[in-house]
Amino acid sequence: MIAPVLPPFLDLGGTAVFALSGALLAARLNQTFVTCAFFALLTGVGGGSVRDALLGVPAFWLRDFWVAPVILITALIAWFIPRKWWQGRDSWLEWADAMGLALFSTLGVAKALAFDVAPFPAIILGVVTGCVGGVVRDVIAGVPSILMRPELYVTAAALASSLCGIMLLLGVQQGWAMGIAALAGFVLRGAAMVWRIELPAYSKEGTD
Amino acid sequence: MIAPVLPPFLDLGGTAVFALSGALLAARLNQTFVTCAFFALLTGVGGGSVRDALLGVPAFWLRDFWVAPVILITALIAWFIPRKWWQGRDSWLEWADAMGLALFSTLGVAKALAFDVAPFPAIILGVVTGCVGGVVRDVIAGVPSILMRPELYVTAAALASSLCGIMLLLGVQQGWAMGIAALAGFVLRGAAMVWRIELPAYSKEGTD
Amino acid sequence: MIAPVLPPFLDLGGTAVFALSGALLAARLNQTFVTCAFFALLTGVGGGSVRDALLGVPAFWLRDFWVAPVILITALIAWFIPRKWWQGRDSWLEWADAMGLALFSTLGVAKALAFDVAPFPAIILGVVTGCVGGVVRDVIAGVPSILMRPELYVTAAALASSLCGIMLLLGVQQGWAMGIAALAGFVLRGAAMVWRIELPAYSKEGTD
Repeated sequence: MIAPVLPPFLDLGGTAVFALSGALLAARLNQTFVTCAFFALLTGVGGGSVRDALLGVPAFWLRDFWVAPVILITALIAWFIPRKWWQGRDSWLEWADAMGLALFSTLGVAKALAFDVAPFPAIILGVVTGCVGGVVRDVIAGVPSILMRPELYVTAAALASSLCGIMLLLGVQQGWAMGIAALAGFVLRGAAMVWRIELPAYSKEGTD
Repeated sequence: MIAPVLPPFLDLGGTAVFALSGALLAARLNQTFVTCAFFALLTGVGGGSVRDALLGVPAFWLRDFWVAPVILITALIAWFIPRKWWQGRDSWLEWADAMGLALFSTLGVAKALAFDVAPFPAIILGVVTGCVGGVVRDVIAGVPSILMRPELYVTAAALASSLCGIMLLLGVQQGWAMGIAALAGFVLRGAAMVWRIELPAYSKEGTD
Repeated sequence: MIAPVLPPFLDLGGTAVFALSGALLAARLNQTFVTCAFFALLTGVGGGSVRDALLGVPAFWLRDFWVAPVILITALIAWFIPRKWWQGRDSWLEWADAMGLALFSTLGVAKALAFDVAPFPAIILGVVTGCVGGVVRDVIAGVPSILMRPELYVTAAALASSLCGIMLLLGVQQGWAMGIAALAGFVLRGAAMVWRIELPAYSKEGTD
């Protein structure tokens, strides 16, 4: 496998958009700034931290100079932009989440493959990296988990992860593989949000 | 301590029955197939993953060829068997969970002891391995955690873990120790389900 | 960085008071002794375990002879003291929690710095160590997370962590740095409990 040179701006970009979704949720629930920053942290580094804990390596943000300040700045931005400005921009929260989902999923696959994880578990690790931050955010905030909503969400992460994993295993250059896969996942999640695309739910036949 | 040769079919068997309980819960909540597979994963490898993260080693399913496919196949089975077939078989979910609980508890103790964990923490790690998958499943699904139900549940895991730990420390052959302990835990949990055995709850004396 | 010699009695003290808050919550919810002990464990070692998983090292309580017995004994104490005795002592739960919060936050910073974590992430790791046990306790018990309450809580952990981190980096002797920082965090949390000090919540301007 190619050496794991993850472009740092992607790591920071993904962290920032995910952190923003966490901070905005806390703000919407009328929490204090400190809780807001804690949610930004949880959502921003939650998925990557679980990935790193599963890999048995130190979490990526512990020795990185930029991740923690980026999260704090994101929380400050979310906190000081007045609520009025967000009026009619509710969906921004979901778009930021969609970007984080797509970016982190591909980052997770690339890192897992670089650590010699088998292909199928590596793709799963990508999905976990993309989804777990949002799941933890929702569970701790006590709102219904994004996992349980009918719109496709995990599916978009699965698409980005699978594409990225397949391209990397076929020898596609890392930047291209991750970029194309993340774009595909983002487009699918975006389409699901715009046109309310839903996967079929488990059949209710025979229950009434 | 004896070398940690865990029989792989037990790892896969335990994973499959736990994954089934996760997938069936998601199906019962009318979720999509992807969410169903995610719950199968969470429940199937959640306990073992937390055990491995506590041990500071990579999660067992990352370099294993079979675990991930077994979970996917389990999710497919849970998904495609029509609801009508499950009518009157509601308790299967609990029996599958009881098997996973007993098996994973003994697996957790054996692995912890093989990694030189002290006896008492090793037994606790067995309980954690057995219970955490189900707890995470319930918390994320937003249903009351299996921990909080009056029937004995953690107790069955504690019985299996303690028996397994004591037998291993006394030099009983690993396969026998794990088999006998898992059977004892399963029987206790099964008895609790059939005869609604409950541990005494914290006394309410003096509250009214 | 100075060698990581954490005074063991602080580790055990913090674990015991946190475990007590978990066990008392389970008792208040009329759970069984086994669940009570499980909550004592979760709350007692949850924060430190997450810290260690993020650091990529085995959890501190796995090779420690005392932590697990201390938790079991704490659970027994919480269980056998009759409810009547707790009448009018409801706030003890919160004071025990405040002590655990302050102690674990400084322990987390000191351990993180000893493992060469960068200063800012080390302070965050202190907050995580202090808060995560209580958060997990509340999420699994299904009560509103301590994070979401208006009173300042994470802020007290942030104060203790920041003070401890700054003092350690300035070369203050470890025992003094941790003691002073923990006291400051405990006093702030105590003041918040006594005088109901609350941080300003996110402004609601423009919503009605």
